[in-house]
Amino acid sequence: MKVNGKALQTIWFEDAQNAVCTFDQRLLPHQLKVVALRNTDEVATAISEMWLRGAPLIGAAAAYGMYFAACEAHNQPDAAAYIAAKAAQLIATRPTAINLIWAVRRLQKAMQNHALAADKVVCAKAEAAQIVTEDIQICKQIGAHGLPIIEALSQQKQGATVNILTHCNAGWVACVDWGTATSPIYQAHDKGIKIHVWVDETRPRNQGAITAWELGQHGVPHTVITDNAGGLLMQRGMVDMCIVGTDRTTLNGDVCNKIGTYLKALAAHENKIPFYVALPSTTIDWELSSGSDIAIETRSARELTHIQGVTASGELQEVRILPENTAVLNYGFDVTPARYITALITERGVCAAKETAIRQLFGQ
Amino acid sequence: MKVNGKALQTIWFEDAQNAVCTFDQRLLPHQLKVVALRNTDEVATAISEMWLRGAPLIGAAAAYGMYFAACEAHNQPDAAAYIAAKAAQLIATRPTAINLIWAVRRLQKAMQNHALAADKVVCAKAEAAQIVTEDIQICKQIGAHGLPIIEALSQQKQGATVNILTHCNAGWVACVDWGTATSPIYQAHDKGIKIHVWVDETRPRNQGAITAWELGQHGVPHTVITDNAGGLLMQRGMVDMCIVGTDRTTLNGDVCNKIGTYLKALAAHENKIPFYVALPSTTIDWELSSGSDIAIETRSARELTHIQGVTASGELQEVRILPENTAVLNYGFDVTPARYITALITERGVCAAKETAIRQLFGQ
Repeated sequence: MKVNGKALQTIWFEDAQNAVCTFDQRLLPHQLKVVALRNTDEVATAISEMWLRGAPLIGAAAAYGMYFAACEAHNQPDAAAYIAAKAAQLIATRPTAINLIWAVRRLQKAMQNHALAADKVVCAKAEAAQIVTEDIQICKQIGAHGLPIIEALSQQKQGATVNILTHCNAGWVACVDWGTATSPIYQAHDKGIKIHVWVDETRPRNQGAITAWELGQHGVPHTVITDNAGGLLMQRGMVDMCIVGTDRTTLNGDVCNKIGTYLKALAAHENKIPFYVALPSTTIDWELSSGSDIAIETRSARELTHIQGVTASGELQEVRILPENTAVLNYGFDVTPARYITALITERGVCAAKETAIRQLFGQ
Repeated sequence: MKVNGKALQTIWFEDAQNAVCTFDQRLLPHQLKVVALRNTDEVATAISEMWLRGAPLIGAAAAYGMYFAACEAHNQPDAAAYIAAKAAQLIATRPTAINLIWAVRRLQKAMQNHALAADKVVCAKAEAAQIVTEDIQICKQIGAHGLPIIEALSQQKQGATVNILTHCNAGWVACVDWGTATSPIYQAHDKGIKIHVWVDETRPRNQGAITAWELGQHGVPHTVITDNAGGLLMQRGMVDMCIVGTDRTTLNGDVCNKIGTYLKALAAHENKIPFYVALPSTTIDWELSSGSDIAIETRSARELTHIQGVTASGELQEVRILPENTAVLNYGFDVTPARYITALITERGVCAAKETAIRQLFGQ
């Protein structure tokens, strides 16, 4: 999507440097700093320290991580063992992100078709590039399938502004382009439908600031609210629909997404507001039958004890916002039971959050 | 309660200075700075800019604000009109806080019994002091009535730690001493019952940091979580009960409290976890039959766009955490319908969140 009026993607390969380029999203929305990752360890660090984030982007980056593993294996006594170890290293960076695993496995599989190390390298690079291309297409399709839902609400409201609440950042900066939850939003806006987005702040990492930044860059009307506010807005008729992304969707339609999603889904259900989850099918975990089986990742206490912002003089500065030595527990995700989800919006179409509907759509 | 091992109250009168003393809670938990308020305008500023906060403390401060109004009226051509204007000014500082109005009206009524300006001053000072004394007693009683609830859970769990979730700060620093939601917690802890408190961060003003500070000073085990996390903890059996405070309780038992309370109540209901509201009866609005009638105060955008913390070098610093010129909507409160409230814990005892039960307890 556009930044300062210029089209940008979140990840691209620079042949001249043999590097995969992305931007350090820890500096967003305050700075747009492009970084070049040159080996598997750098990719693993970028994922685990959240220079890049969002399930699809993590998958694309991990694919390039596997490409680097193929390059590096060349100098190793046991190339296969090295590649396997690097795959495990990448997967361990974010245990909840299902399409991190998916991308790593896909690269491993593609490489297995080639005996020669050089062929593995060529094939891995092509496969990673293919994942990037596919992701753009998938996100565009999610938008195409979600657009009629917003159009219908707009018609119901006789053209009055449709108010859409979103949590976290399932925007284009979490993917390669378009985003998942934001793709229907961008497409509705581009089509001239009057919309307004309520952007949850999304503590502790405040990804709402990123969503606000990207919506603002694209010209979509939006307002940031605290994570606490959505319930009241729903009670008072100020929300027409919710759309969120997902890190992992289990076969029964349970959705594991950014911590706090569950609370919004409960409030939407209570107030009879449709609650949609936008997802690429790569985030479907075909092996888990229920979200209650998912181990929830705990993250660094520092995400809660400290926060980064810009001082009056324009410098990035981190400050501590809790008393020293305060105990903190920082779960990254929660599970929204399928019964609170109106429908899943996928690249293949819209379906109920139910195993039968999911299997029907994807023919598995 | 104790700070650095020494007993402290949140408000006290200093005769030598003819000033009411409190501490500037905007600096908590990082600094404890005592401030002396010497006239009505200073009290109004302290309330509206949240140097002090919490319904009971606001009430006590407003009472001293009326005492200052009585002192100042002496030099006014129309003393009665001056006092009425100052009453209106104080009430306007926080329109949602019901016992701000209650305290102001109580002082006005007390003063009406005296014709002479000097008598009004003496009586206003005594009445304000009486409000302070009563508040300590009321909070202590709330704790005494809430204690058996925690004791019963402890017995049910055969002495294992009782996990209590709280939102915002309904602690002693929001009152004069003991707190409302925290009073049963302090009394259970002092009695040797094993408890642990989940402290909601409570965006946008992060009052959870204050709750963590005061619990820490008193030695109560606690852990700070994001406002987003409570739903997951409840799903996974990590919360045994919730206790929150309230700014206003309507006759049907609806509770208007810090924004986000409603979301926690929904999650508690969903997960069959008891949800208690601790309140002094001064926060009951006998004239409102339902919470849906309450006008919700919107607060400064800056509470969301900026945040204050301590730098690595120990200085207080404010940073901007959203993109410049981001639109923000900042409601301060939400309404939790009575049907999600297990019971109200008051200074007179525990009762259902129902008009009949409330009237029975208070004989009105």
